[in-house]
Amino acid sequence: MQQQLRIDKTFPLALGGLLPGVQVTCEQWGDLTAPPERTVLVLPALSASSHVAASDADPTPGWWDGIVGPGKGIDTNHWRVICASILGSPYGSTSPLSTNPETGRPWGCEFPQITPADQARLHAWTLDALGIERVHAVVGSSLGGMQVLQFAAHFPRRLNRWISISATGKTTPGTVALRRVGRCAIMTDPDFREGRYEVGHGPVRGLAVARELGTITYRSRDEFNKRFSWEPDGAVSARGLAFEVERYLEAQGRRFAHRFDANCYLLLSRCMDLMDLGAGFPAYADGVKRITTPGFIMGVDHDMLIPVSEQQHLAHLLESLGRSVVFEVLPSEFGHDAFLKEDAWFGPRIANFLAQ
Amino acid sequence: MQQQLRIDKTFPLALGGLLPGVQVTCEQWGDLTAPPERTVLVLPALSASSHVAASDADPTPGWWDGIVGPGKGIDTNHWRVICASILGSPYGSTSPLSTNPETGRPWGCEFPQITPADQARLHAWTLDALGIERVHAVVGSSLGGMQVLQFAAHFPRRLNRWISISATGKTTPGTVALRRVGRCAIMTDPDFREGRYEVGHGPVRGLAVARELGTITYRSRDEFNKRFSWEPDGAVSARGLAFEVERYLEAQGRRFAHRFDANCYLLLSRCMDLMDLGAGFPAYADGVKRITTPGFIMGVDHDMLIPVSEQQHLAHLLESLGRSVVFEVLPSEFGHDAFLKEDAWFGPRIANFLAQ
Repeated sequence: MQQQLRIDKTFPLALGGLLPGVQVTCEQWGDLTAPPERTVLVLPALSASSHVAASDADPTPGWWDGIVGPGKGIDTNHWRVICASILGSPYGSTSPLSTNPETGRPWGCEFPQITPADQARLHAWTLDALGIERVHAVVGSSLGGMQVLQFAAHFPRRLNRWISISATGKTTPGTVALRRVGRCAIMTDPDFREGRYEVGHGPVRGLAVARELGTITYRSRDEFNKRFSWEPDGAVSARGLAFEVERYLEAQGRRFAHRFDANCYLLLSRCMDLMDLGAGFPAYADGVKRITTPGFIMGVDHDMLIPVSEQQHLAHLLESLGRSVVFEVLPSEFGHDAFLKEDAWFGPRIANFLAQ
Repeated sequence: MQQQLRIDKTFPLALGGLLPGVQVTCEQWGDLTAPPERTVLVLPALSASSHVAASDADPTPGWWDGIVGPGKGIDTNHWRVICASILGSPYGSTSPLSTNPETGRPWGCEFPQITPADQARLHAWTLDALGIERVHAVVGSSLGGMQVLQFAAHFPRRLNRWISISATGKTTPGTVALRRVGRCAIMTDPDFREGRYEVGHGPVRGLAVARELGTITYRSRDEFNKRFSWEPDGAVSARGLAFEVERYLEAQGRRFAHRFDANCYLLLSRCMDLMDLGAGFPAYADGVKRITTPGFIMGVDHDMLIPVSEQQHLAHLLESLGRSVVFEVLPSEFGHDAFLKEDAWFGPRIANFLAQ
């Protein structure tokens, strides 16, 4: 079941400023009358919509079909599953594509900067709109996993437990550096027009380059070296596609650039840079301490974007603070994207942790 | 002593095609009457000129001043040191900036694609022009190290020994992927004009983005995380410079973009992709077997661009083929750039190997 929710209440932002009302697109699976103890909230990553899994209402493939569905890791025969689009995304939430009521035109590059804490708050408001006070678990990966951590920190009484995959409690400069280059590629495209392009006529080439770099950081060198030919088999000129890996990246970039908005991308890219459980606290640990519910932190050894050391650090810190936390590392050449590929590893672990 | 050498002989290219004559800029240090046994040839990397070290003739800093000079790793009190600009570079060699005699205009993007084997051949021709049949050693890092390997493979009777640092015998898809994104950023800049920009009015913004990504891959996440603040302290908007690491990258990119030519960059970027000691042979080992002189392969454990496994693989292969090879790994957070930073490690090792 898909719903558009409009919340006509001023939405405060972590960095200051307000949004005059917010909207989200929300989908649900399973028994919609299930109590909180049987409700799981799934939080999407950068490029994901609320359509986490296929359903009777919308049989198109979901972005986490391998984990969410009947008999799967998050078993929709048992759990009521809720997934809402994230603040700032072009998939049905308030975002740069929304109309700024003050101007009557899309916000575009004037949209105020958000953080994962804002996105977590919108999920809480979404639960309010659905009349749900508390859920059993909140689950997400990558930017979804950051929102999970912020949700657990800000709303400790609204969940029993949480699962955060391939995320970080605080973004490090090494990751900011990689994201910055993607942003610069977008801004170099003449169609960017300082962010004032007409919606639908944005910088698709620059956005494609950003996605190509993203794709590299979502996978791993070892995967690429096994998967793609080592011999050039195309035009060897620098401007041509000489290697199979170039054709792969080119296709990934092009596909994404035509289904995403550049201002949304820039906003969400910076949003991830600003992930920080310690923001506003004297020390990082003071912010982390707000997480009081049991959690499961998972990382992937080949993650090039958010190294597993960051998940490990957070797990150790939570443990040191006396919190209940499980930490596991998956060895996988799919790197940051492993949560979309390694169902056999994630599925049973998620199922077990939810069942506890 | 700096010399411009013009060689009016048709220069054949590895991928087919010819250059109608070539030129290089060549510099020398030490006793210019030294015999071959006391002569060392240094081969520059992507962004380096022939000015490897300061000298009386040109006291401006050289790119390898920490290693080349009186009493240093390559001691100019003992060794005659020769360094020539590389084919395709904007620092005095035949390159896209040179005039195409057929059109009377700069080659620009019409310059034929070269490989490190071509660059090695130009170094051999340079020695011919200087009347030098043989040298004691050939030394280089990164693209310089690739040329070292090609020189040793193509001209085994013209050197006694060689040192190849942070290079590869064959480029892998994981590295092609990273270079491709830099190339795409250049081509996205409207000033690129499909490569037909006027010299001096090229795509500086795109070239800066390429250099920013290059800089990330030349260093390491661990270096960035130690060196730069983790807190945003600037404009948090996606288009601003919120983090110290962004300001660093921005400065690196801007500086480089104003001293390099985009068509040269694209040519050399693809040139490195095409590094392959096995090109034209039934098997990679058949090509590697041509290297018969003793070599020293060095790698850096944090190298993000050319992982140390590639140096290790080449060293093991040479050993398996009965060749004399030393292999050492430097643990350094400076990654691919370590050869420019870790003089205390490289200097004595280079000196010892040259003295054997």
